Formats: sequence, structure tokens, C-alpha cells
Amino acid sequence: MSADRLIEAVARLKNPAVMGLDPRPQLIPPEIMGRHLAEKGESLEAAADAFLEYNLRLLELASGIIPAVKPQLACYEALGPAGMHALRATLLRAREMGFYVIADAKRGDIGTTSKDYSSAYLGRVTIGETRHEPFPADAMTVNPYLGSDNLNEFLSDCKLYDKMVFVLCKTSNKSSVELQELLAGDRNLYLVVAEHCKRAGDALRGKSGYSSVGLVVGATYPLQLRRLREKFPSVYFLVPGYGAQGGGADDIAAAFDRYGRGALVNSSRGIIGAWQKHPDANWKDAARTAMEDMRNELRKAVPSGFV
Amino acid sequence: MSADRLIEAVARLKNPAVMGLDPRPQLIPPEIMGRHLAEKGESLEAAADAFLEYNLRLLELASGIIPAVKPQLACYEALGPAGMHALRATLLRAREMGFYVIADAKRGDIGTTSKDYSSAYLGRVTIGETRHEPFPADAMTVNPYLGSDNLNEFLSDCKLYDKMVFVLCKTSNKSSVELQELLAGDRNLYLVVAEHCKRAGDALRGKSGYSSVGLVVGATYPLQLRRLREKFPSVYFLVPGYGAQGGGADDIAAAFDRYGRGALVNSSRGIIGAWQKHPDANWKDAARTAMEDMRNELRKAVPSGFV
Repeated sequence: MSADRLIEAVARLKNPAVMGLDPRPQLIPPEIMGRHLAEKGESLEAAADAFLEYNLRLLELASGIIPAVKPQLACYEALGPAGMHALRATLLRAREMGFYVIADAKRGDIGTTSKDYSSAYLGRVTIGETRHEPFPADAMTVNPYLGSDNLNEFLSDCKLYDKMVFVLCKTSNKSSVELQELLAGDRNLYLVVAEHCKRAGDALRGKSGYSSVGLVVGATYPLQLRRLREKFPSVYFLVPGYGAQGGGADDIAAAFDRYGRGALVNSSRGIIGAWQKHPDANWKDAARTAMEDMRNELRKAVPSGFV
Repeated sequence: MSADRLIEAVARLKNPAVMGLDPRPQLIPPEIMGRHLAEKGESLEAAADAFLEYNLRLLELASGIIPAVKPQLACYEALGPAGMHALRATLLRAREMGFYVIADAKRGDIGTTSKDYSSAYLGRVTIGETRHEPFPADAMTVNPYLGSDNLNEFLSDCKLYDKMVFVLCKTSNKSSVELQELLAGDRNLYLVVAEHCKRAGDALRGKSGYSSVGLVVGATYPLQLRRLREKFPSVYFLVPGYGAQGGGADDIAAAFDRYGRGALVNSSRGIIGAWQKHPDANWKDAARTAMEDMRNELRKAVPSGFV
């Protein structure tokens, strides 16, 4: 019931990177996609099989280099029930291989309903007297718009099962300025969210000092990232927007504390779509090189290391 | 590309009710749940089969009384891939029977990702040259926290396929006060959201004057509901919180314009869990009576009728 398990995973590989598993048909190497389309036609099932095969092979390549993976749920929902099968199989295999797994769900609803989302990803679902883990993950992303009765349902499962949430705070997209930067009194909305989450996490801190309640803060907003790091030393950040969206290694250096803790940096297209930039290379070499390059860049940007 | 299709569905049955299809194991009549558990054990698949059977039988009962249904996605995700199969089968059958179908997804992400969610529920997903509708719905609920680059992806599909979105504005839960009522300058955050959505919908208005961009406003906040109705005559409301959550027929009267247009009122547990309050009655009679009672209450609360 803290960020300790995550911090250990990062320290083990000296790498705070997350591989975003955001498969889309055009991101799957043609040799994989083509084979499944030939087998099952231009169906959602064929695409889901291709997503799953690509994910499993990326997990093999990432093993020992990258400590965490983050499937983006929208990509799987876009393939209907078959996509959700591929999601579940990806989650199971990733956890089995020891990755820290973050379901990028961005869910949020009224309390009774959030409980269902939380049970699906972080907790257990009970049918009769049998308990199930429908989509097992170590952490998930949560939307703050509905307030604390939403968040609290997820926190119950964080406590029970040593899981984490990352609450959307300052997202990486351009229009995140519209609501998230609104001034409420003397504070931007994203700071109000951060304060709520900091308080909610105070009872869920481990020996590292970091709590189970993290925030999503985009690499594309380095000033806000720095401000949040200074203000909230117990809050772990999940930092998207690195690479394809425009954030560089320097931008994310401010997300870390002086021990190189406190942030996970996500790259999706930069890794899983690396083969598109190197048409002459094997897709595996392109992905593996992108993984190693990212790790080396992060190590350079955060010279204190990751302990 | 407006609310006209929805308005016609309401006028046809003179009833602005939505049946929330939020199945949970304890809400399924024991004769249905028991049979599926006996057949497939205490599995997620058994529960999903029971959800689907109950939904299909509720749709039969609601036909000719209630114009719209709203499956709550969390309930189906809680059963893993099997639950998503039940969701898809429910959506297909409900649309085939002529219900206006709202996927209660509350999704929201950065633009490229929102496009995947929108394709899954409102638009089309293309594999090779074949187009699919993974989870076909007429409308879906959307979370505003990420701003307009999120919303715009959904609006593209609203235009192309004559669909609608309902954006979370003032939700029915208690803690919706925490962020949604924050004062940004002279306006509460929920009003800022409403204004964004009003503007975004201006180009998507039909002969009724109502646009494709609706708002979710809880029956549990009647003052805000009235204020929003007065201020935004082109914006359709989806009103949860009626019945089990505490909103009464008087509370929702303010959601309608003088022609009885402008709002859909949702009841979930009030209908699908009606049998629990009438243990001596047949579950079908309890559900059917609850549907008719709700329609009659709404007709009484909005004496101008639904034209």
C-alpha cells in the first residue's frame, strides 16, 4: 500500500521507463499483421491476435531492460470483445514475467460504479463464492472530475492488494490548458487535484515516503512538472508525452527527486513504432535499440541514478 | 448530427425515460442467475450469460414503453472479456429493437486515443479495408477533464454518423461539489464545461434546435439543473440520479423546456432491481410496473407532454 513495490522494480533495472502497449493496426509490423489477416480475414479477431502476438514479443524484448508496461485500454476496446481478450492475455503474461503493469484506463464514475472499475483492474470480482481478477493490473489511471467518492473506491483496493492509482493531473495534450489550468482562487485546477491526491495518499505511504496515489503529469509541461515535484514530495508521477509527443529527456529530469525516484516515464510509439523509422532494419532490432536508447537517455538525464 | 433522432424517439412514446442497464450479480433475479451458475459454475462467463439474458428480457419488457437504454460499461468490464461480449450483444439487440442506445462510458483521453474510443462506440474501426462497429451505440458519455482535443474526436463521429455525446457536467454524486463547483473567476467549473459544450454543439444543431453535444446533470442537484436549462436552450441533458439516488420527479421537471423537450431521465436500480422490493411478485411484473410508474410520474411532472 505504497509506491515501494514500483520503486524496487525501477531500482532493479536502473530504469524508470514504462513501455506503452498502445497497439494500432498500422503500428504492428506487417509480417505479424499480415499473417493474422491471412488466417482470419480482415476481422477484429485477426487484429486482436496480431496485437497480442506483438505485445508478447515486445515483452520478451523488454525483459531485463524496462520494468513497467502500460497498456492503453482504448486500443483494445477498439477491437471489441476480441480486443479485451488480447488485453487480458497481455496483462496476465506481463505480470507473470514480473513487469509492473499499469492499466491506462482513465476511468472515473460515481462511487458504486467506480467500485466495479476498481474490482475489474485492481481488486477482485466475486461470483457466488469464487473470486476473479478480470483484468489484473498493479496500477491504473483514474480521472478526477467526479471527486473523492470516485477515488476512494480505488483506494480501498490499493490498500487491500498493494496497488496504485495515477490520477490525471496535468495531461500531456495541448487542450489540457482549457480546464486544468483554470484558476480557482489562487490555484490552478490541476494543483487542486494534486492537493486532493496528496492528502488522500498520506495514509498510504511506504518506507520510500511515496504513497499509492500518484499523478499523471505530461512531459510536455516541464514547468508544471517541476512545480509539482517541489510541492509534493510524497507523490509519484507517471509522465507521458516523452518522445513522439515532444517531451525530451531534459524536460523530464525535473520529475525526479535527488535520488532519482518519483517518476515513471512512458514511451509508446517511440518503442512499438520504432520499426517504421528504420525500414531496413528488423523490427525487433529497432524496438530493442529504442528501449536501450531510452534507458540510456534517462540515465544521462538523471545522473543520481535510480535507487 | 443533432438531437433530433433522440427527440423523435422520446416523442413517439411520450416518455423521456432511459433504462439504465447496470447489471450486477445481486441485481439479477435468482431464477436467471441460478440457472447460469448451475450450468457454468461460479465463473465470469456464467455471470455474463446471466447479465445478457436479463438484459434481453428487460428490453422485451421495455419495448413500447421506454425509448432509450443506457448500459453502464463498468458492470460489463467487471466480468472481463466475457462481460464485453454480453455488452456487445446487448447493444446490438437494443439497436435492432429500435431503442436509442447510450453507452455510459465516461471516456476521455488525449486526442489520438479518444479517437479509438470514439471509433469503438460511435464510429467505425477499419481493419485492412473492412469496417467494423465493435460496440455500436447511438451516443456515449464523455469526461471533459482533458479538454477540446478529446471532445473533438467524438464530435467528428457525431457528424459522420448522426450520433451524440453527453459530457459530464454536474454529476449526481455527493463529491461532485469538490471540483465541479470550484469557482473559476465568476463561474463554477461545471458552467465552464457547459459553455465549452454549448459552443462545440453550435454547428451540430438540428430542426429541434438541440445539438449533438449534451450534458450529464444529476437529478440530485435541481438548482444547477434549472440554471443550466435556462442558460443553455440548445443543450440536451442526460439526467441520472432519479429514484435510487434520491432525485424525485419534481426535481427533474426543471430539466425540460416548455415543450417537454431537452432531457432524458435515467433509472437503473429502480427498474432492474424492482423485483427486490416486491419479493412476492414475479420479477417481470415488478420491472414492468416500475417502468410504467416512472413513465406516468414523468408525464405528471412535465404536463406539457413530450412533443
